[in-house]
Amino acid sequence: MSDLMNTLGQQSKRAAQQLSQLESAEKNDCLMQMAQDLENSSNTILAANQQDLSRAKENGIPNPMIDRLRLTGERIKEMAEGIRQVASLPDPIGVVEKMWRTEDQLMVGQQRVPLGVIGIIFESRPNVTTDAASLCFKSGNTVILRGGKEAFYSNQALVELMQQTLRHSQLDPAMIQFVNDTSHDVANEMMRLNEYLDVLIPRGGAGLIQRVKNSATVPVIETGTGNNHVYVDHAAQLDMAISIVANAKAQRPSVCNAIETLLVHEDIASEFLPMIEEALTPHQVALRADSRAMSYLKQADLATEADWATEFLDYILAIKVVASIDEAIEHINRFNSKHSEAIITDSYHNGQRFLKEVDAAAVYINASTRFTDGFKFGFGAEIGISTQKLHARGPMGLEHLTSTKYIIYGDGQIRE
Amino acid sequence: MSDLMNTLGQQSKRAAQQLSQLESAEKNDCLMQMAQDLENSSNTILAANQQDLSRAKENGIPNPMIDRLRLTGERIKEMAEGIRQVASLPDPIGVVEKMWRTEDQLMVGQQRVPLGVIGIIFESRPNVTTDAASLCFKSGNTVILRGGKEAFYSNQALVELMQQTLRHSQLDPAMIQFVNDTSHDVANEMMRLNEYLDVLIPRGGAGLIQRVKNSATVPVIETGTGNNHVYVDHAAQLDMAISIVANAKAQRPSVCNAIETLLVHEDIASEFLPMIEEALTPHQVALRADSRAMSYLKQADLATEADWATEFLDYILAIKVVASIDEAIEHINRFNSKHSEAIITDSYHNGQRFLKEVDAAAVYINASTRFTDGFKFGFGAEIGISTQKLHARGPMGLEHLTSTKYIIYGDGQIRE
Repeated sequence: MSDLMNTLGQQSKRAAQQLSQLESAEKNDCLMQMAQDLENSSNTILAANQQDLSRAKENGIPNPMIDRLRLTGERIKEMAEGIRQVASLPDPIGVVEKMWRTEDQLMVGQQRVPLGVIGIIFESRPNVTTDAASLCFKSGNTVILRGGKEAFYSNQALVELMQQTLRHSQLDPAMIQFVNDTSHDVANEMMRLNEYLDVLIPRGGAGLIQRVKNSATVPVIETGTGNNHVYVDHAAQLDMAISIVANAKAQRPSVCNAIETLLVHEDIASEFLPMIEEALTPHQVALRADSRAMSYLKQADLATEADWATEFLDYILAIKVVASIDEAIEHINRFNSKHSEAIITDSYHNGQRFLKEVDAAAVYINASTRFTDGFKFGFGAEIGISTQKLHARGPMGLEHLTSTKYIIYGDGQIRE
Repeated sequence: MSDLMNTLGQQSKRAAQQLSQLESAEKNDCLMQMAQDLENSSNTILAANQQDLSRAKENGIPNPMIDRLRLTGERIKEMAEGIRQVASLPDPIGVVEKMWRTEDQLMVGQQRVPLGVIGIIFESRPNVTTDAASLCFKSGNTVILRGGKEAFYSNQALVELMQQTLRHSQLDPAMIQFVNDTSHDVANEMMRLNEYLDVLIPRGGAGLIQRVKNSATVPVIETGTGNNHVYVDHAAQLDMAISIVANAKAQRPSVCNAIETLLVHEDIASEFLPMIEEALTPHQVALRADSRAMSYLKQADLATEADWATEFLDYILAIKVVASIDEAIEHINRFNSKHSEAIITDSYHNGQRFLKEVDAAAVYINASTRFTDGFKFGFGAEIGISTQKLHARGPMGLEHLTSTKYIIYGDGQIRE
């Protein structure tokens, strides 16, 4: 282990003890100050961002990626507003979820406590820095942030600014830390920093998630890959189905809660498929259909086996005609990434079966998968969408960044 | 990856789909039948156990370990009773923990579902086989069991028996599987079987837990190490303190919820330490004291720095005199394994501080740490005691072997 990661780990762990004991008001005051300092220091941040942008252009980084990297006065305002919103959320720490009396007359309560030290490995968007840092801070966790090299200067400037606010608030600046080395070696060390990290959350593309999953011995929460489906049942209201499929595919195809494959019951395929093709045409969605679906479509390519397993994140939709809800559920459970799945149906029985039998973080009847989102679920925040089953599944808000401890009130009880 | 682990993984994953859809009554009937079949086949099990015992004696395995390995008619009855008790517990699967209406008028419910496939790596006691298998089965999870080589024949016979019951119940026998290879290589493969295993739970000594923690890329739930403390505050009722310390240390020192270190406030050390020495004498507890504590004790060795960090699991107690509750909390948070900690005090303020500031799965006021136990907490079962913060912390019952999924009832909602 390099000195860098060991030092960051030790400092974060020490700071976690102080942070876990802060009152909500202290945390909120500090967050409000961070937002203010961020707005006041726009110029510093924009200058650092300019360094990243210049380097990106030199390196021939594609334009959409440069756009994601670019900060503006407006975007910095939004980041500050994001921090203020986190400050306004209820503090999960200290809440006793339940309390009961045992047979031995002990009062046992389960109380929310911070996880401790959270590692975040993320890719280009610099707004993840302030988002993640404020959520970790509010939930009583120190954080070690390791961003991508493209946004290095922006991320570093943002963290330095937040550390300055911490210092001015008489708090340990190590509550929010930055890994100022973007090499793979250091990232790999972070994935094995079991002594100091309580959890590691990768935020980024499928490649990053896979790399972390294969290498990390620190507990990981996988986020984000969404190979999602809408199944249009024979008993669907077709107008509703069209509106939902168009929304789930084309409203914002680059996000993880968009869909990639449409499954259509054979009884309605001849009527529905031409309708959905027409509805998707204005969005220029390319269709990749199985042979049966092809016969009802004007313009489509033949889908390959690989298409069923691909998260396109683009204006591409795979389409398959199925003979039954059983075939739909089987296809979904085979190919999905356990993120978000929807059935469109007026059949009570089929809706209930779909909810019960489909394995995913979020399963919908008659709604767009695009609602899988911490804000839309009412959590007031989102650190990511977990696609694993351990600890947290689905959209993660502040509560999902906590653990619990049992607090037990006795009166001299001993065990016989 | 070897064929063995790949095949087991595939089979378990396929069986998990069937198991996740079983009704509670089907699961309970099958468990009751397993218990019956186990009792009816005592002789087969005892014969297999005899093979393990003979080999253990040949290999010069120490007697206490042979005792843990030994099955008797009585022990088999207890194992069967254990299975029946699991059958009688409420089924956690399908429970909707909460349900709410979002701003978009979606009804979102959080429903308990199985984790999927659970791997268990455990050491010598064969009763873990039926315990773990019945808990996993009841909570809708398939299980891959990899026991130690000492109990190989017993474990194998037990799993074969349970698989036979599954077959007779028209269920896939792959719901409960056994790794019939006790090599380290295969254990290491199991720790990296991310494609099929949803979680890995090691059950055994600190060495095993550490090995799994350092090697596994599959999500792990750490269980069991307990370097626990009782802090006797200056405001303690000394008779209560003696009864609790004696219970926590000497009632059963080999278990993870026993204590290893006693911390005593300096104001009461001269009165309390001779009393506790007298109380522990009948149990032949060896004392390892710091220099201040030594001066109040008749017979004690000087504690080394390493003693504070050691889980003795034996009739050994480390003792330290502290100047304040602050020093006690600091010592505990530095050396403990985050398992169970207790303060004995009549001071309301100190009790509350201890609960808030001590970092452990279970923190007690005025009770023995020996209550950290799924049965004593009222969960009706226990698969282990988690000492990590992710997913589950403290005693784990059936509910802790589950995940959740969001089920969402819509009415055509799309995202703007």
